[in-house]
Amino acid sequence: MSKVTLKILAKQLNLSTAAVSKALRDSHEISEVTKKRVISLANELAYVPHPYAGSLREKRSKTIAVVIPEVADSFFSLALNGIEAIAIQKGYHALIYLTHESVDREIQILKDLEFGRVDGVLMSITMKTTSFEHIKALNHKIPLVFFDRVCDEVDTAKITTNDYECGYQATQHLIDCGCKRISILTISNSLSISSKRMNGYLQALEDNGIPYEPELNISYGDDSEKNHELITALMSKPDRPDGILATVSKMTMDIYLVAMELGINIPQELKVVCFSNESTAAILNPSLTTITQPAFDIGKQAATILFKALEKKYLILSEESIVIPSSLIVRRSTIA
Amino acid sequence: MSKVTLKILAKQLNLSTAAVSKALRDSHEISEVTKKRVISLANELAYVPHPYAGSLREKRSKTIAVVIPEVADSFFSLALNGIEAIAIQKGYHALIYLTHESVDREIQILKDLEFGRVDGVLMSITMKTTSFEHIKALNHKIPLVFFDRVCDEVDTAKITTNDYECGYQATQHLIDCGCKRISILTISNSLSISSKRMNGYLQALEDNGIPYEPELNISYGDDSEKNHELITALMSKPDRPDGILATVSKMTMDIYLVAMELGINIPQELKVVCFSNESTAAILNPSLTTITQPAFDIGKQAATILFKALEKKYLILSEESIVIPSSLIVRRSTIA
Repeated sequence: MSKVTLKILAKQLNLSTAAVSKALRDSHEISEVTKKRVISLANELAYVPHPYAGSLREKRSKTIAVVIPEVADSFFSLALNGIEAIAIQKGYHALIYLTHESVDREIQILKDLEFGRVDGVLMSITMKTTSFEHIKALNHKIPLVFFDRVCDEVDTAKITTNDYECGYQATQHLIDCGCKRISILTISNSLSISSKRMNGYLQALEDNGIPYEPELNISYGDDSEKNHELITALMSKPDRPDGILATVSKMTMDIYLVAMELGINIPQELKVVCFSNESTAAILNPSLTTITQPAFDIGKQAATILFKALEKKYLILSEESIVIPSSLIVRRSTIA
Repeated sequence: MSKVTLKILAKQLNLSTAAVSKALRDSHEISEVTKKRVISLANELAYVPHPYAGSLREKRSKTIAVVIPEVADSFFSLALNGIEAIAIQKGYHALIYLTHESVDREIQILKDLEFGRVDGVLMSITMKTTSFEHIKALNHKIPLVFFDRVCDEVDTAKITTNDYECGYQATQHLIDCGCKRISILTISNSLSISSKRMNGYLQALEDNGIPYEPELNISYGDDSEKNHELITALMSKPDRPDGILATVSKMTMDIYLVAMELGINIPQELKVVCFSNESTAAILNPSLTTITQPAFDIGKQAATILFKALEKKYLILSEESIVIPSSLIVRRSTIA
């Protein structure tokens, strides 16, 4: 038997696929009569909506999984709190799985989750995930919602912040503060959040007539000693940068420590903006200008959409994506 | 049938209970002949070692649970990394459950775990846990190891640091730096780590002939606004403290912010020591003197002992407790 798709339903009902999709999601735009026709045919043909076939099974585990790279990071720990706020409301447990940026571990965890241990999955991929078969396989079985580190290749809901705009805004702020040579620290070229922040940075440079210098783009890896060396090398150059945009919270430590070691004054000689949700930003020496992400809300929204998928039989998850804006909070690290 | 205990085995074999226990744990102190006698009788009488009866079932889930109050805390996130380092080695998944300091949530989670979802449990109790029936019930079914926030009332392995000595050492350091009125910020009177730190503080005061003033003991609750108010009230007094020992990492923020708001200079007018594993301690304004706990090692040792229990049939977990010392790291917040 060939697979029943939205298209087939639409054709037989003489409706658009959009109308069928809306009817299955109980949209107010569709009349009750049409809804009944659609649902009746969907049941008759045993139509299984692709993104969350697994959730149709009767037995619920009353648990969801949260798959993230690490918890020693202010963004993820706050996002977790947002997720749990919703899970608790719904009477669910959240099981947290850490990948530690290992793709092998991510694959193992997702395999484990395929066996029905949980009803749904919230996920932020590793910085090294470049093939997506393991994620697609899971997405065919149970509802999956991405947050922050999303995966454009997989068709489901994605909860993100406005990474491109933030990259632009942070760079523009450094330029407005007088910076001429702005370095950007990134984590991975394959992550969409990373490339969006990078593109915002590049566009801001271009809009201000500043040429892009590839040697000012430092890419962080797993090895924290090596990362520290990279920053030391960058800051030891005679033509060292006068501004740094750090796209991940943990980079703050290296920048501040290297500046101390080399006797470089922040903000006089070097201005720093960091994507960070650390509450300590306000009490650092000097206090740190940040792009503060709506971490708690991102977690909360991701969980809300996952539970919507668990509660409603027909929901096209890919139509539920949300972008929640971040804020630039100016502190002493950029004000000379 | 009455329950077969170590005592019954010992009596029938004409051995001490210690010798039986050692034989069951395959100790080198016991001869092979005696071991065989003991194990043979244990099998004959279907002796089930109390602390981990559940682990004898054949089917393993290849997962362990980690039940902790929160992850937005440097101690717990580092301890988790230590736990996962071992779990990965052993081919296990670690499921992380957060209680968010709610006893109800802790009870729910432990009930869930009783149903055999995991092979073993690592746990740090909430700051409000004052009855222990739910923990004892779990401890009868599957192997359980406590770390950091342990529970003296439950008979199993406990991995802790030298909290009493650290409370003493931190207080003595403040006294050595010239402090005469030392405030202590605590989280819970029922937690054993909290009372040990408090007792160390009290002993150091006594040994230096400084009377204890109860109004200098501030107890933190759940409400972060109220906590901030408590610190503001403490620091606004005419006879405000000249030294603070903060027993939990997150208190640093309140102390530093209130000092900024009230224009109190750290370390000139106020010296601060905090139990903290935050890497940012070194880059705060001023850098923070800390009691740094062996968080990663505590997690690692707790997991190691749990896996020992999973691998060995006979192991008396309560005999496996370990204390790993912390270090005082002196930085600018105590040096005027």
